[in-house]
Amino acid sequence: MKNIEIEPMDADAFAEFGDVIECSRGVPTTINEGMCQRFSDLANLAHDSSGRLGVSIFRSRLRTLPYELDLVERHPLGPQAFLPMDGEAFLVTVARDVGGSPGHPRAFLTQRWTGVNIRRNAWHGVLTPLSGTGLFWVVDWIGESGNLIEHRWPEVWIVGEECI
Amino acid sequence: MKNIEIEPMDADAFAEFGDVIECSRGVPTTINEGMCQRFSDLANLAHDSSGRLGVSIFRSRLRTLPYELDLVERHPLGPQAFLPMDGEAFLVTVARDVGGSPGHPRAFLTQRWTGVNIRRNAWHGVLTPLSGTGLFWVVDWIGESGNLIEHRWPEVWIVGEECI
Repeated sequence: MKNIEIEPMDADAFAEFGDVIECSRGVPTTINEGMCQRFSDLANLAHDSSGRLGVSIFRSRLRTLPYELDLVERHPLGPQAFLPMDGEAFLVTVARDVGGSPGHPRAFLTQRWTGVNIRRNAWHGVLTPLSGTGLFWVVDWIGESGNLIEHRWPEVWIVGEECI
Repeated sequence: MKNIEIEPMDADAFAEFGDVIECSRGVPTTINEGMCQRFSDLANLAHDSSGRLGVSIFRSRLRTLPYELDLVERHPLGPQAFLPMDGEAFLVTVARDVGGSPGHPRAFLTQRWTGVNIRRNAWHGVLTPLSGTGLFWVVDWIGESGNLIEHRWPEVWIVGEECI
């Protein structure tokens, strides 16, 4: 049993895994006769051309801390953008690939009003809302081919609790 | 000056303009070891292949009723999915195409926790949140070509107020 500290979400630290989708750093264009700001094209949605992108809704049970992480997955054919439907912060777990397997995982807690795009083929834990409705808009790859690779660690990582 | 009644959003009535993105009628698959329901692929995102889909954030000022509608637009190269970031209901105005121009407009008020996808080339008014933060995740076409056709009526339509 090993412990993982939760880091505040940071776009630079997260860049190797995907995109933090929020508007605090972007420069918007003004549209709709001055009534709306557009923060444009905030996620890398590159995907395999054998499928297409779709919009789905995920309704997840809430999780609690400390969170026991023993399973990560990756999607070789496309990205997966998680956009909270209620503005709540949520936990995101990811891991660098090391020779085809996930390395030491990292855990990030988003800010409110923030989405996360997991880049194609990046190792990540499943959706882990900690508060709110557990509802997310999800933009991901839709197609016929298998798009899920899982890895289960023999030992559980404990996320969000100091060593006891 | 002509009046337009607001209709409650209804997927069947809206189908000629686009998709109502919500999970009340769908049958989910269960994922993430039973912890999450997935309502999959809820919008027709067909688009021109000269560009791609992206995720953006729109931050709109709130509007009030009665709403004065004199401008609609359409995007010939791709769809535009509006996904509220705060779960709030919002007003959606659309019009059937009649020989290249918009016909009599219709206005729909969504339910909470509901998104709307405006299909490629469907006439629609600009984003009109009535409450909440005015924040929306938007999935639409990103590319170099012109993707905006506007139509301004010589007279204003009044949405959401009975004749006086």
